[in-house]
Amino acid sequence: MQETTTISNLSCPLPISDYKQILLGHGSGGTLSHNLIQSLIRPVFNNSFLDMLHDGAVFDINGARLAFTTDSYVVRPIFFPNSDIGELAVNGTINDLAMCGAKPLFLSAGLIIEEGFEILSLERILQSMQKAALEAGVQIVTGDTKVVEKGKGDGIYINVSGIGSVEPDVEIAPKRCREGDVIILNGRIAEHGIAIMSAREGFEFESEIVSDTAPLNSLVETILNISKHVHVLRDPTRGGIASALNEIAEDCNLGILIDENKILISESVKGACEILGFDPLYVANEGKLLVILPEHVSEPVLTAMRNHPLGKESQIIGQVTSENAGKVIMKTSIGTHRIVDMLSGEQLPRIC
Amino acid sequence: MQETTTISNLSCPLPISDYKQILLGHGSGGTLSHNLIQSLIRPVFNNSFLDMLHDGAVFDINGARLAFTTDSYVVRPIFFPNSDIGELAVNGTINDLAMCGAKPLFLSAGLIIEEGFEILSLERILQSMQKAALEAGVQIVTGDTKVVEKGKGDGIYINVSGIGSVEPDVEIAPKRCREGDVIILNGRIAEHGIAIMSAREGFEFESEIVSDTAPLNSLVETILNISKHVHVLRDPTRGGIASALNEIAEDCNLGILIDENKILISESVKGACEILGFDPLYVANEGKLLVILPEHVSEPVLTAMRNHPLGKESQIIGQVTSENAGKVIMKTSIGTHRIVDMLSGEQLPRIC
Repeated sequence: MQETTTISNLSCPLPISDYKQILLGHGSGGTLSHNLIQSLIRPVFNNSFLDMLHDGAVFDINGARLAFTTDSYVVRPIFFPNSDIGELAVNGTINDLAMCGAKPLFLSAGLIIEEGFEILSLERILQSMQKAALEAGVQIVTGDTKVVEKGKGDGIYINVSGIGSVEPDVEIAPKRCREGDVIILNGRIAEHGIAIMSAREGFEFESEIVSDTAPLNSLVETILNISKHVHVLRDPTRGGIASALNEIAEDCNLGILIDENKILISESVKGACEILGFDPLYVANEGKLLVILPEHVSEPVLTAMRNHPLGKESQIIGQVTSENAGKVIMKTSIGTHRIVDMLSGEQLPRIC
Repeated sequence: MQETTTISNLSCPLPISDYKQILLGHGSGGTLSHNLIQSLIRPVFNNSFLDMLHDGAVFDINGARLAFTTDSYVVRPIFFPNSDIGELAVNGTINDLAMCGAKPLFLSAGLIIEEGFEILSLERILQSMQKAALEAGVQIVTGDTKVVEKGKGDGIYINVSGIGSVEPDVEIAPKRCREGDVIILNGRIAEHGIAIMSAREGFEFESEIVSDTAPLNSLVETILNISKHVHVLRDPTRGGIASALNEIAEDCNLGILIDENKILISESVKGACEILGFDPLYVANEGKLLVILPEHVSEPVLTAMRNHPLGKESQIIGQVTSENAGKVIMKTSIGTHRIVDMLSGEQLPRIC
């Protein structure tokens, strides 16, 4: 697509997106989000920290090695089966820190509340946040509250930023992937996205589908206690495991081959995906992680993961390959191979 | 006001606010905000860090002494004379760190964008953020972007959280105030609030009133280089200097006496406040700070502040007293004394 030359083109050093306005898909975690970050946000905030990792930044301050991350939560509805936006926000940011190989320590809570929001709902959400923080062994130490007029928000939006400490010999980065590395996933996919969708639309399935939201820091600690040779940790949230694996493949410029038969999904979630027309590979998870590590340490790590309450169903789902650089290929259950693209557009808006 | 007893009262260990719903005033920085924080948020997130400070938390990780803060920015309009929400957000969080006595180092950027927002406006805001970060010597190292449907936001909301390092011998806390401490203010008040109000309502005054937004970290560094005996640093943003001083008086359980003649305000801002019916003591500032310190170090600190570009008009505006504990008293320009309360309700919604 050829751009016409205008003053604005000439004065701007950045590639202007083909889109002139923000679409819902820019928040999906898929291709549009990825392009927005790569073509606009990263070039502006140009620094080496942004290039290293997906889920947070790692740096040293006065000899302490730290991870720092931020996430805003706009999930709708704010209360959903077995959980709510408060627990999701705390667990989500804990997980972003854990995916940097960090031990999460301190969180912030930034609330943007719509005028007219029920105080009792606010209290329930704050209690959920505190409960989740206590369970994961972190503290919410600073906060901020803003109120916007009715019609300028949607109940409540929550930002949770977090700080954790990283051991000196841990180095998690997609660029560290090597041919032959093994990919482990800790359980069944697509539960969070389908739980939210069901709650939002009032669908009822035979067995209730609940969000898998969970703090993954203890599981990550277990993994890193077995081996510091882990190359990548990634929680496949927005955009599902398909988008997460595509980002990793692109960042390390290697191929990823996954085996459909090894990717677990409950019958009820599978059925719901079929009814709703969703590919579960693209549906958000909030208690799952992908671990990429050298084959020689994969067996003890897998065993340790299976002994952890959040990793009982861990499976090796695939490996890193030199062929198909930058792409994700899936061996399907019927033995064929297909390319698994990044999510394009928007599948489930406001899933987290 | 007597509460009727219901199941919900009985099961809830917290005092339930007299308000059942969030009002705009709960985000004002005045009495309602204060009550919300004291009666709901602090009791839930119960920990010692929350009690120490107003603007952020200070803690140690692996021997490094750090400050951590968060702020969401919902200012309307997003572009205003000489500045915008991006610069405001970066400066605001830098200032919160500086008010902990910290050297700000790393920031996060959490964007909540409304569907349909112009990409060029987003780019302009991101550029402002980066420019402000570079000017203050900090780096934006991690971020997050969410998109909400049209009508569920208001263009863009930005959360900026930040981390800074704190020298071991610096201890900033309202509880450290002592009788006889001197209060310094670094310049003219009420400029940010009136600039925003003018931009929002399309008022035109004889001379354009612009926001005083500025990063105060360099001024704080100058102050702490002269003396580590500073007891309190506070940027009087939402709720103005009146609310900031009231919070300090309450936290240290001492009185504060200020002198109206020493509080500077430009003629144009004073005129605008008179026309609009605002008391400038309650109007937001974004480049001002209150410094409370022992009298014996006040002269060299004042001199150093006046030699700094952001402190040329610094004045001693008052002192800490043993009388009137918890209250702020102002000696007026006509020689009488009046109580200066905390802002009650909402004066200027969405000022930052």
